Amino acid sequence: MSMTHPRPIVALSGGVGGAKLSLGLLRTLPADSLTVIVNTADDFTHLGLRISPDVDTTVYTLADIVNPETGWGRRDETWNFMAAAAALGGETWFRLGDGDMAMHVERTRRLATGQSLSQITADMARRLNIPASIIPMTDDIVATIVATDAGDLAFQDYFVRHQCAPGVVSLRFAGAEQARLAAAAAAALGNPGLQAVVICPSNPYLSIDPILAIPGMKDLLHGCPAPIVAVSPLVGGKAVKGPTAKIMTELDLSVSSLEIARHYAGIIDGLVADIEDRHLAGQFDLPVLFTETLMSSLADRERLASEVIRFAEGLVKQRKSHAG
Amino acid sequence: MSMTHPRPIVALSGGVGGAKLSLGLLRTLPADSLTVIVNTADDFTHLGLRISPDVDTTVYTLADIVNPETGWGRRDETWNFMAAAAALGGETWFRLGDGDMAMHVERTRRLATGQSLSQITADMARRLNIPASIIPMTDDIVATIVATDAGDLAFQDYFVRHQCAPGVVSLRFAGAEQARLAAAAAAALGNPGLQAVVICPSNPYLSIDPILAIPGMKDLLHGCPAPIVAVSPLVGGKAVKGPTAKIMTELDLSVSSLEIARHYAGIIDGLVADIEDRHLAGQFDLPVLFTETLMSSLADRERLASEVIRFAEGLVKQRKSHAG
Repeated sequence: MSMTHPRPIVALSGGVGGAKLSLGLLRTLPADSLTVIVNTADDFTHLGLRISPDVDTTVYTLADIVNPETGWGRRDETWNFMAAAAALGGETWFRLGDGDMAMHVERTRRLATGQSLSQITADMARRLNIPASIIPMTDDIVATIVATDAGDLAFQDYFVRHQCAPGVVSLRFAGAEQARLAAAAAAALGNPGLQAVVICPSNPYLSIDPILAIPGMKDLLHGCPAPIVAVSPLVGGKAVKGPTAKIMTELDLSVSSLEIARHYAGIIDGLVADIEDRHLAGQFDLPVLFTETLMSSLADRERLASEVIRFAEGLVKQRKSHAG
Repeated sequence: MSMTHPRPIVALSGGVGGAKLSLGLLRTLPADSLTVIVNTADDFTHLGLRISPDVDTTVYTLADIVNPETGWGRRDETWNFMAAAAALGGETWFRLGDGDMAMHVERTRRLATGQSLSQITADMARRLNIPASIIPMTDDIVATIVATDAGDLAFQDYFVRHQCAPGVVSLRFAGAEQARLAAAAAAALGNPGLQAVVICPSNPYLSIDPILAIPGMKDLLHGCPAPIVAVSPLVGGKAVKGPTAKIMTELDLSVSSLEIARHYAGIIDGLVADIEDRHLAGQFDLPVLFTETLMSSLADRERLASEVIRFAEGLVKQRKSHAG
């Protein structure tokens, strides 16, 4: 590494919302200075294929081939596989596009040859010319189990098949305690030149908590000399997308960026909340940047990324006062 | 079975050419009276998927969803999977269409749950409303190995990747000696009401010999009271399609329907040869029907099927004089 090497940023991310901010960071930062550590607790085996939804959303978004309407899957996708599978009696509740299938088939094939999810993801990112490191949080199997009023559900059963309809009682991440943090994730967080860690505006309970549940992760964050900021996924007490607000209500939490700050207390040094929530100023016990957090356009993503980095730069480390 | 149940026909078939005649038979015969026993020695595992090319060609053809230009694959196919797989570093020498992928993914998934290839094929044929039985010759793994002047090649390496360019020295069917004939195939051939057995105009060396190599198959044909006719794949000393003529030359065989008759001697009671070969009349030591064997149109297939059945009906069993 030369003296002029850019100071790296690590992002923790789930799927769509996190990938949007990651793209903003990628486009704002010098090449090869972004590392995204991605949730894999949504991963599952379907039709015999190993599917990593958040990793794929991150890869597609950073490769600029994501479907801009959904935020996941591929742009200009076709659906002939799905139609033919339906005619043959295959399950179709989880939609797999024709181009998207290449990712799942190739991943499954390589896993069977003994390659790790990290290796496979790094190679695919390289082939798709993504100038960032995308690191699955672990190469081990971790699976979110959603305890609901309709019983325990595997994550994709809850999220896709049941469209988040059952009420959430609690969440657990099966396998997390035994999982090993991806080596590249630990290395990225241990880099003494690290500029900042950004917790993306993903669902804290479904997407970020699994990453934090991997043994060693919280210690690495506590020991990390760089400032850590989280971007709240809530805007004016509502979730931009997905079941965040619904789950917070079901878990008896107030649907507020104050609650997001409380959730990450002891981990983060500052919070980025939406401008709509600026009436909450003064109620946080850590620095808060109020700004536009909706990311409709590419320009929105780049602006938010820049603001998050600038905010982090100005932070005095707060964690000692929250930890422990 | 009632007295009026139609007398069944069994066809032995490889891929494209055999499937065309099978479709003619299907459309000529009463419903549910055709059984096609299909070569599986071309089957292989590719991209982690179990692929059965001849079974699929038969299924697609009889379901009337085959690509009419190639004779294999699906009509109105798209190729987004292949393009995306190429971008991810996947192998692309074996072309897999988006709709076609459903067959391979669903087959692979079901095999992994313990279903047999026979069960899976029967279920798919039922779902695609095919009023015929399509029976893979065996549920065990048999793999054609092509010994060539460039060394031993797995069948699809020889056939697709190398486009049949290497000279063939010999052929063997690895696993055939240990393979068990599909139970439904044995039952179909043992049916005392059987009207005829038709060996389709598939490549005798690559597509039919593997079927004949399954232990018990030749005995069932010898013991079968119904007449057995083969349709020669040659027209005027040339192969209609594929490497049949090239392989015959490389194996030092004369490229002639006389050689096809010799190849099946002891098994068949009559041969159907092309009208272009009628100058060979008198040189065969079994009954021969000379007729148009090219199957360009659907009407061609139906006409040839009718003629083959009528020819078989008029045959006196010849096999005793050839057997042994």
